[in-house]
Amino acid sequence: MANAVRVDLAEKFASFDKHWSPKLVETLDGYDIKLVKIKGDFVWHKHDDLDEMFLVIKGRFCMKFRDRDVEIAAGQMIVVPKGVEHCPTAAEECEIMLFEHAGVVNTGDAAPNNLTNPTERI
Amino acid sequence: MANAVRVDLAEKFASFDKHWSPKLVETLDGYDIKLVKIKGDFVWHKHDDLDEMFLVIKGRFCMKFRDRDVEIAAGQMIVVPKGVEHCPTAAEECEIMLFEHAGVVNTGDAAPNNLTNPTERI
Repeated sequence: MANAVRVDLAEKFASFDKHWSPKLVETLDGYDIKLVKIKGDFVWHKHDDLDEMFLVIKGRFCMKFRDRDVEIAAGQMIVVPKGVEHCPTAAEECEIMLFEHAGVVNTGDAAPNNLTNPTERI
Repeated sequence: MANAVRVDLAEKFASFDKHWSPKLVETLDGYDIKLVKIKGDFVWHKHDDLDEMFLVIKGRFCMKFRDRDVEIAAGQMIVVPKGVEHCPTAAEECEIMLFEHAGVVNTGDAAPNNLTNPTERI
């Protein structure tokens, strides 16, 4: 039987620096809880079959949609529904918790590029 | 197509007072993101088939397991694996984000009682 382990988000965030490189910290059923640091612009993409949650732990970022921008600060979250094109961008570094189905690639349907990453567990 | 809505956790927590009464704020695929305020002792229970995440937003609480206690403070989280008996308790009010499969009853396998609640969306 799996054991429950306390996860300290600040400790985990302190353990890596790379932007746009989500780190796996826990799993729940078939879902991943990941932490990511972002800064600058990502790529436009969508996930055809899966929703994706972004909870800001520190800082703020802008989730761009095709029809509007949504500013999201620490203590705020947004769920991007499946099939909706989005592009996160952050003027300054922002720390985010992600909740999404295991195996989701962060670039979604965008062409594979050097932003794509296998998820390292920390 | 569903629209992405920013959720402010502090605003949501300010909208209710009742302890041990999780409120639904978002859904992601078949999972619920809920907010709950707890104070005092809950009941021992388990969820046979589903994991359950507790992320502390404000305050602290103790997750009691049969073999140990784990103190969890703001900025920390724990995933209770399926099948593991647990009993949350909080000396002072604690604000928690829950992530669990839709339809999970917070008392799990414990006998239905007045702690059981249908989940209200806020």
